[in-house]
Amino acid sequence: MMPIAHFKKIYICLRIKEDAMPKTILIVGTLNTKEEEGHFLRRQIQKFGHSAVLMDVSMRRCSPHLESGDISNVDVARAAGTTIEAVESLERKPALEKMAEGAIKIAKRLYEEGRLDGVLGYGGSTGESIAVMVQKSLPLGLPKVLITTSLELASGSVEHKDIAIFPSITDMTGRINKINAVALAQAAAAISGMVEARPELPPEKPIVVASQYGNTTPHIERAKQILEERGYEFISFHAVGTGGKTLEELVRSGLVAGVLDVTTHELIDWLFGGFSNAGPHRMEAAGEMGVPQVLVPGCLDMIQFWAKETVPEKFRGREFYFHNPNSTLVRATKEESAEVGKLFAQKVNKARGPTLVAIPLKGWSICDTEGGLKTYYYDGTPTGRYWYNREADDAFVKAFEQHLDWTKENVDVIKAELHINDPKFAELTANALDDMIKGKWKKGKRYL
Amino acid sequence: MMPIAHFKKIYICLRIKEDAMPKTILIVGTLNTKEEEGHFLRRQIQKFGHSAVLMDVSMRRCSPHLESGDISNVDVARAAGTTIEAVESLERKPALEKMAEGAIKIAKRLYEEGRLDGVLGYGGSTGESIAVMVQKSLPLGLPKVLITTSLELASGSVEHKDIAIFPSITDMTGRINKINAVALAQAAAAISGMVEARPELPPEKPIVVASQYGNTTPHIERAKQILEERGYEFISFHAVGTGGKTLEELVRSGLVAGVLDVTTHELIDWLFGGFSNAGPHRMEAAGEMGVPQVLVPGCLDMIQFWAKETVPEKFRGREFYFHNPNSTLVRATKEESAEVGKLFAQKVNKARGPTLVAIPLKGWSICDTEGGLKTYYYDGTPTGRYWYNREADDAFVKAFEQHLDWTKENVDVIKAELHINDPKFAELTANALDDMIKGKWKKGKRYL
Repeated sequence: MMPIAHFKKIYICLRIKEDAMPKTILIVGTLNTKEEEGHFLRRQIQKFGHSAVLMDVSMRRCSPHLESGDISNVDVARAAGTTIEAVESLERKPALEKMAEGAIKIAKRLYEEGRLDGVLGYGGSTGESIAVMVQKSLPLGLPKVLITTSLELASGSVEHKDIAIFPSITDMTGRINKINAVALAQAAAAISGMVEARPELPPEKPIVVASQYGNTTPHIERAKQILEERGYEFISFHAVGTGGKTLEELVRSGLVAGVLDVTTHELIDWLFGGFSNAGPHRMEAAGEMGVPQVLVPGCLDMIQFWAKETVPEKFRGREFYFHNPNSTLVRATKEESAEVGKLFAQKVNKARGPTLVAIPLKGWSICDTEGGLKTYYYDGTPTGRYWYNREADDAFVKAFEQHLDWTKENVDVIKAELHINDPKFAELTANALDDMIKGKWKKGKRYL
Repeated sequence: MMPIAHFKKIYICLRIKEDAMPKTILIVGTLNTKEEEGHFLRRQIQKFGHSAVLMDVSMRRCSPHLESGDISNVDVARAAGTTIEAVESLERKPALEKMAEGAIKIAKRLYEEGRLDGVLGYGGSTGESIAVMVQKSLPLGLPKVLITTSLELASGSVEHKDIAIFPSITDMTGRINKINAVALAQAAAAISGMVEARPELPPEKPIVVASQYGNTTPHIERAKQILEERGYEFISFHAVGTGGKTLEELVRSGLVAGVLDVTTHELIDWLFGGFSNAGPHRMEAAGEMGVPQVLVPGCLDMIQFWAKETVPEKFRGREFYFHNPNSTLVRATKEESAEVGKLFAQKVNKARGPTLVAIPLKGWSICDTEGGLKTYYYDGTPTGRYWYNREADDAFVKAFEQHLDWTKENVDVIKAELHINDPKFAELTANALDDMIKGKWKKGKRYL
């Protein structure tokens, strides 16, 4: 059972392309320590009839390898507005960031000129970090392969992006051995196939994306039903950090017709250290791209942690709901709500497309409902208070209204004396979004 | 920047293969909930001129999808010696294991008959788990792609295996949308390329694999030098769990001429709950395959944990060496050493090929050396005792000798009054292994 037997059958592959242009794959690696691997990958891609451009992102000017890539590390440093000598004198982190900056500029330029059809990155920690940064800077759908010595590290840095990860099996030390020859050749073959992929796309329907929690599911279900009936493709994301990031990424890719952002929870976790954190740019993509959006303060009543033990010390004196052993909710206070309200307004103020903020005054989650759940102390004893806290929610509304730029013609606000999961409220958001996408929405139109 | 523009160029690919046989790719998924995805993947592979066999591993008999795969879940259950009705009545875990058992049998049979050139798995948790088990059962080097809804979960189950991981971006819910159409098509294209990979293999040299720790590096460096001079390709693995597993995997793949197992540390971590754990089958592959091996009790003087806080309560009264903030070593006791000695002998007794156990009586790691390091209590105060503990090491030797089957002609033991990192001891292990590979070794030959 010699696995290399798989590669013993020789054949010729003749490709006749309508456009007669070979595809171009960019290879990103550090040639100072991993030159042989780079050349090996390039030859493997060329066997498939594609061209490969080898970019050296080494942080050191290291003869005899100097300028051995098609794009040398001298070129990469120059693209970042510096020199390789200057990069060499930096600490590891800023040096890495400089090289990534240059590599991203070059890759984006190639892409915009139509000379980039895929990116193959390889490396240990340095090469891999830079390659992933380059890949993340390019649009969703462009083929991306990463060859890594550590699957665990790579899956962390790749996050939610469309990057395929190939383990190198043995370390990459500047030498091709019988083991990594097979692994590297397969990765090169994979991206050579990927640049030729021709997906049958499903019937053309405008896509609506939504953000969801168990706590907002009734709203999403009703809105989905309405929007699917009207001919939309409805894709929902679990707003636990990666979900929100993927939603924003899709919006930025230009594939999305409208955003039903019912579960903007990730904003509060970002502000106060909860675990469902989608970074500082959540709730910005649709606004920047001018994509129609309906925004709701869904689940902004809670800061979320995993197991009870993961709740930071500073929150332990607060009011809790222990949803399950892996989900611990902290009730947001008046002060926190006000801070989120301000942030919410600041993000809305930057929006360039149709934007409706719909506020359900009777509660923002299944937890946050009149006469519903009671809260607990960290030790599990009841506090005697309810989770629903209109005063806290109102503090959000007040701060939001205070910081909102009311003069913007593309932004409107509707406050409804309804709970977020009331079917009437879901009908409001779905109808408004449908109108926005169809160009029938304008500021001042009520949906109640 | 519509990413789908990448796929708009149409071309014809005409493949003329010397053997005129299409490659066959097995697709593994659960068709009860993800049928459309399976058919989509099959069609995408067919576009590349390969054939695709769709295997349904659903744990439920679920019309109208029943028997819709090329290999139905009824067939898979049957291959496991049961029926789909019986599987349906089981709990999730045993049901999953039964389906995996059947799927593995079918995949192995196809592979042995030369009718399997790659495996493409896809799924959420169930489909993915079964697909990974099938992929793990097949040899290194056979192309393997996994499409997953969770990179984090997948990278855990894939472990150290040569499985490429593709994120599905959106969930797989039995429907193809514009987003996952691109992701799935790329994964299918990738494996279609991979089955065509033709690596240039480096010049034919016999491969020697070794196990290494910082604590045994001087030994490895000297042995490597000797063995490379004699024309071997030398590949070393960091014995932190994945390293040992990969070493064993390579040995099982049949690609390895000899094993220099100088750092068998993972045995003690497996026995006592340390973090460098390579599972119960460490130090067995070479013995089973009859591959020449030199075995050394390297780093069996220590149980390893990561940060100090990760040391379980029961070890906290023991003697420590705090190597760095992420490496905490616990000194093995006499009793533990004796237990490892017994296990070591039991593994050696099963060996079928040339096996030399070389024991350096003057210490098993850089820590374990006369007049060297001192140990500390958990709170950081010195114990006043040294790490080197001949009494503990001797307890290993005694238990090992007591449980060894001394009648085996293929097994020998050399005890040397040397430290593991003494160049003379490295010369001993390297020379013996070289002899073994060349057929010049026999029981009783001394290397001192």
